[in-house]
Amino acid sequence: MESENYTFGPYKIHQKEVFYSTQLSYAMVNLRPVLPGHVLVCPRREVKRFIDLTADEISDLWLTAQKVGCQLEHHHKASSLTFTIQDGPQAGQTVPHVHIHILPRRSGDFEKNDEIYDAIDVKEKELQQKLDLDKERKDRSLEEMVEEADEYRKLFS
Amino acid sequence: MESENYTFGPYKIHQKEVFYSTQLSYAMVNLRPVLPGHVLVCPRREVKRFIDLTADEISDLWLTAQKVGCQLEHHHKASSLTFTIQDGPQAGQTVPHVHIHILPRRSGDFEKNDEIYDAIDVKEKELQQKLDLDKERKDRSLEEMVEEADEYRKLFS
Repeated sequence: MESENYTFGPYKIHQKEVFYSTQLSYAMVNLRPVLPGHVLVCPRREVKRFIDLTADEISDLWLTAQKVGCQLEHHHKASSLTFTIQDGPQAGQTVPHVHIHILPRRSGDFEKNDEIYDAIDVKEKELQQKLDLDKERKDRSLEEMVEEADEYRKLFS
Repeated sequence: MESENYTFGPYKIHQKEVFYSTQLSYAMVNLRPVLPGHVLVCPRREVKRFIDLTADEISDLWLTAQKVGCQLEHHHKASSLTFTIQDGPQAGQTVPHVHIHILPRRSGDFEKNDEIYDAIDVKEKELQQKLDLDKERKDRSLEEMVEEADEYRKLFS
């Protein structure tokens, strides 16, 4: 770990939620994953849109995503991956900090394959409500997230 | 244009459908776009999965996607972008050649924001049927696609 300070838009991310990082990017577990292994990969620098990233950041971000996706696909015995950036509010972005959703996929994980995107969207809205409005809801516990991050961290050591 | 030979998995792509290219990547218009400006960015080398790309290819692919997305968002007076890779059959990939879907997005383009992914999926299935089974259906004409590619090509000259 190059740094113990991670931010995700306006929010601080606990270092124990981060399971892999490079000089320019980091990978973290998800408060409300829609499938096992659904994680986020972000540039360390807080930029809202993909166009704001430098060439070095883009390269590092996607090399990180490649590495993370490969490890989690195998770890979860999946056979495919979904990589998605919702780049801007009209594309479903709620946290104004570029992030790649990575989801290990397997046959039958969603009845209709692309229902996964609706699920991502619902979770992002719930997340936004939690973060912005502090509404009551059932999150994963920090302990549960830390346990998952510890499990994933071993894949990269 | 560095080359006039483009392949997309097992299919040959007419150079007139390609509106931007680099040494390692190319961007083409879409046989059945689900929104105006819905294009594909691919590595020139035919690889099925994202893990198969080299670091240079990943960097070039996503720098190309950044550039293409920015130009098409402005050209179509949109305000966001969707970037998606369906990496493997269980993620909805039908053509076994890595490709990034880029879609300019604006408010209200889909009633539910993420219906766009269902639309992509349907189009990919239709494309597969066309390509594999040569079923009768209504494609865009080559002339229409070439006209669009000509329009987009000017954005990068």
